[in-house]
Amino acid sequence: MSSMIPDIVISRLPVYLRALDRLTQEGHEVTSSHELGKRLGISSAQIRKDLSHFGGFGKQGTGYKIAFLSEQLRQVLKVDREWEVALVGAGDLGSAVARYRGFADRGFRITHVFDAMPEKVGRRIGEFVIEPISSMQRVVSEAGIRMAMVAVPAEHAQSVADQLIAAGVRAILNYAPINLNVPDDVHVQYIDPVIHMQRMTYYLPLR
Amino acid sequence: MSSMIPDIVISRLPVYLRALDRLTQEGHEVTSSHELGKRLGISSAQIRKDLSHFGGFGKQGTGYKIAFLSEQLRQVLKVDREWEVALVGAGDLGSAVARYRGFADRGFRITHVFDAMPEKVGRRIGEFVIEPISSMQRVVSEAGIRMAMVAVPAEHAQSVADQLIAAGVRAILNYAPINLNVPDDVHVQYIDPVIHMQRMTYYLPLR
Repeated sequence: MSSMIPDIVISRLPVYLRALDRLTQEGHEVTSSHELGKRLGISSAQIRKDLSHFGGFGKQGTGYKIAFLSEQLRQVLKVDREWEVALVGAGDLGSAVARYRGFADRGFRITHVFDAMPEKVGRRIGEFVIEPISSMQRVVSEAGIRMAMVAVPAEHAQSVADQLIAAGVRAILNYAPINLNVPDDVHVQYIDPVIHMQRMTYYLPLR
Repeated sequence: MSSMIPDIVISRLPVYLRALDRLTQEGHEVTSSHELGKRLGISSAQIRKDLSHFGGFGKQGTGYKIAFLSEQLRQVLKVDREWEVALVGAGDLGSAVARYRGFADRGFRITHVFDAMPEKVGRRIGEFVIEPISSMQRVVSEAGIRMAMVAVPAEHAQSVADQLIAAGVRAILNYAPINLNVPDDVHVQYIDPVIHMQRMTYYLPLR
């Protein structure tokens, strides 16, 4: 089934899941494609169509049971379990990521933090002791970790990615402002605030 | 012209620009859609088509002059100038964003950092003195700032966004893990690492 679902649909499912979690926190138990759409700025038809790829999660007119739909989406996205994640780079950004508490209940747990600078190795960030990048490939491989976040300077990102991939990592969230060359079976997502900002300035009228 | 260009094309232009800057740093002066495509994992045909929306930046067979193409893209994206940006939230993530040096030469300059916590107000982060959120609307409005980054807890993000919009902000980069409701003339981009991670787990085989 999975190969049939367009990637653009997959990209929206985590957004739906986040909105459903929010609705639960607010005390709701049932929602509708209309309500979700209003919250997300997506048409309700689009939401119904996206969800129809995975079978009927709700009945026409009665809305969606939030707990059930959330659980289904978690299964589809495979975050109904916890993924171990290696974080590489313990600078300002890496440290903020290491301390971020928003991963745990959404499917991810950082289990290792690596840095290349000898003076950082052995220091603590939150609950982690920073490990040397020289042992990264062995540690990641032995732990069977398949996901990593890369928050190193741009000039080191490709080399770090290569080592992670050699260790068995198949999904990388790259914070470094550079595109990575990876094999076809490795997934990469990018976070670069400037890219997002530049996308918006295009639409702003000049004064 | 601008209303004719699909948003998906606009979304790729900052990525092209970043790759061109990288090529320049590496000492290149000329590139091709083929080389760019290989670096970015995008087909050269797609790149030529995207760039053709803005007129001919290069001649068939002779490649692109990087300096010229970069400058054209900067003009199209309106980052051939510097945009003042307000940053709201001086927690772990906000502090990392405030210290990030990658904005300056890509069109953006953070000029104010706001936080709601009285004990943070007046403290320094890098070159900034944290200002109280209570004065945000006035300060942003008086400075004519039209872009903001929001790095506050999810439960405060909508209220902060409302105040920013009332002050004249028309583009928000939202780090809070929640969708914002904004008027049609306000642009929002989202950065949520979990969303990116969940997009990738879908494609990872389970063991």
